[in-house]
Amino acid sequence: MNGVCVLGISGSVGQSTLKVLRQFQEDFRLVSFSVHSNLELAKSLIVEFRPALVCITAEQFRGSLGDQFDSTRIVYGEQGLDEIITLGQVDTVVTAIVGAIGAKPTITAIKARKKIAIANKETLVTFGPLINKLVSEYAVTMVPVDSEHNALYQLLEKEERTNVRAITLTASGGSFRDLPLEELPHVSIKQALNHPTWSMGPKITVDSAGLVNKGLEVIEAHFLFGFSYDEIEVVIHPESLTHGIIETLDGACLQYTSHPDMIFPVAHALYYPKKTPKLLAERKPFTWKNLHFRNPDPLRYPALALAFQAGKTGGCAPAIFNAANEIAVALFLEERIPFIQIPKIIEESLNRIEITSPTDWEGFLEKDREARAFVKQKFAKEVVV
Amino acid sequence: MNGVCVLGISGSVGQSTLKVLRQFQEDFRLVSFSVHSNLELAKSLIVEFRPALVCITAEQFRGSLGDQFDSTRIVYGEQGLDEIITLGQVDTVVTAIVGAIGAKPTITAIKARKKIAIANKETLVTFGPLINKLVSEYAVTMVPVDSEHNALYQLLEKEERTNVRAITLTASGGSFRDLPLEELPHVSIKQALNHPTWSMGPKITVDSAGLVNKGLEVIEAHFLFGFSYDEIEVVIHPESLTHGIIETLDGACLQYTSHPDMIFPVAHALYYPKKTPKLLAERKPFTWKNLHFRNPDPLRYPALALAFQAGKTGGCAPAIFNAANEIAVALFLEERIPFIQIPKIIEESLNRIEITSPTDWEGFLEKDREARAFVKQKFAKEVVV
Repeated sequence: MNGVCVLGISGSVGQSTLKVLRQFQEDFRLVSFSVHSNLELAKSLIVEFRPALVCITAEQFRGSLGDQFDSTRIVYGEQGLDEIITLGQVDTVVTAIVGAIGAKPTITAIKARKKIAIANKETLVTFGPLINKLVSEYAVTMVPVDSEHNALYQLLEKEERTNVRAITLTASGGSFRDLPLEELPHVSIKQALNHPTWSMGPKITVDSAGLVNKGLEVIEAHFLFGFSYDEIEVVIHPESLTHGIIETLDGACLQYTSHPDMIFPVAHALYYPKKTPKLLAERKPFTWKNLHFRNPDPLRYPALALAFQAGKTGGCAPAIFNAANEIAVALFLEERIPFIQIPKIIEESLNRIEITSPTDWEGFLEKDREARAFVKQKFAKEVVV
Repeated sequence: MNGVCVLGISGSVGQSTLKVLRQFQEDFRLVSFSVHSNLELAKSLIVEFRPALVCITAEQFRGSLGDQFDSTRIVYGEQGLDEIITLGQVDTVVTAIVGAIGAKPTITAIKARKKIAIANKETLVTFGPLINKLVSEYAVTMVPVDSEHNALYQLLEKEERTNVRAITLTASGGSFRDLPLEELPHVSIKQALNHPTWSMGPKITVDSAGLVNKGLEVIEAHFLFGFSYDEIEVVIHPESLTHGIIETLDGACLQYTSHPDMIFPVAHALYYPKKTPKLLAERKPFTWKNLHFRNPDPLRYPALALAFQAGKTGGCAPAIFNAANEIAVALFLEERIPFIQIPKIIEESLNRIEITSPTDWEGFLEKDREARAFVKQKFAKEVVV
């Protein structure tokens, strides 16, 4: 019996995790979880799963469920997060909190020597070098839950590392994949949130629309798998059936293809290093429709090149890329800037903020804060075109 | 140093084998080979590779190179084949002779406990149950050289057998893939030999045009990998980049994709169980053009269903399928029957010849001969429409 803690249970990864836990009750127990503000969900899951501990993180709901609900103890805020992670019965922590805010609990989980099913890409993007150091220092296992990284993780287990020349992340191309380029300056929030394949939260859906999300994933892949940025490729694949591709030195490729259902990567990450059970989902035959691949258009997706640039620059550049983007997306979702301003804000942030190579958490956090402040101050007053 | 014997060196697999031997002279030595009638090729390869023994198999050329050419001893005919296979210095036998005639030397090689790089699909189709028995009795390794089977072989090494639900063979669709159906009755030999992807001999190219070749490969895959016919699928994939696909129980697929160059499977089969050297061919980047997949049209390719039917029937049915096809293709290449007559001949043979389950070689051979005689007698006098 494997004890699971889910950080951010209300999101799409959280919900997929629940599906796996419901299907394999004999293998996993939901020991603890956190929600930000969805108290109704928290209550119903407490009744269903009877976890030992639940954390409500939104400050405005501190105390709202008291110390106990049903047979579950309730804790609150950042300190509460630490409690639900470090609990002795917890073996695996699913880090599904979106944004750089997910980094701190991830660090807590590593230090508590839990297995990490990492679904928070900003943690690796912002603090990559330090996280990797910590993972090896505490000798914990970190398995990616993102569908692309999980596919690559599975493929890389099947091939000798020295024989792999490149890894390729597929991208659906997001909400504006087929939009005439000249309409891009005028897109609405509603349009941006209409993702062609995946149903996800608003932040990541906007990130997908500009391939910022793929850019973050490129940096994440660099830190997860140790490939240089010249060995990482991105390809637009509208059907989202092939999730990852590895190319061997002789030019042959291995592709991992499955229906776009997060139950596959979540189950793999939860079971790892054990084999995932054989009949995971009802079999959906691969429909043999066309698989399309094309190179991303740099005019449509300028943020992708910026992500590669930030990654190659190294140091705190990825942290700046991510922080600037987080504020820019928030501004877009508040209708304060147009969509195409997002990559411009990232670029300007990378150009104007001094790039350093911090050696501690505070150094990276400082740059993260500097980028946020820079964007807020400079762009917050702009108006939608 | 691995000693190699190539049966049928003048064909496309033979030529690909030579490419690998030339590239990796420190790992392989061409100990012996056979040609049917291409004496000029034989002479130039003798000078280049200085093999110990060479066999000329065409009866009309018996004695034509004497007992010795340069420093190489020359032998002739069927008995000569046995000699070049059983030679002590030979470790691996590449069986690249086309047609059921390739079975006997394959059996000789198994009994001599050589590693078999099998490129003759008719052997397994005609004598599948007996070959499999022999392979396990003599504990030899048999690695397929066909690009599809080799891809599947490599994929199946990467996944637990019990977790594989199905294997899929890709087919280019052959010379008539895009021809209007109503033109099929009037196609010429020249049209049939114009294969869209692979440059191969005439027999296999005609086989490809009607998916007879894929049908033979389905039966071959059944015997090689032990999958039932319900677990084997065929899909038209015009680009011939993806060579094999395995589907796990949960519906996820692993695809093997590479440029259509026989150097990949030949090198894998020669090196197996060792790893193939890393830089096999100059890297040709995967071009990310569209990969297309569609189900085969049963009206265009009636022979495919016949192959599945013959396979499921078992016993000598695959042998009849293969033998009837060999004669039918020969008749087509002699302009004595139209192309669309080929599947009709196969069907009629399967319907009219009694299906038995032989337990010895002679039993299968008898059925093979019966089918050939049946086709010759019944169809040889028909005229091209």
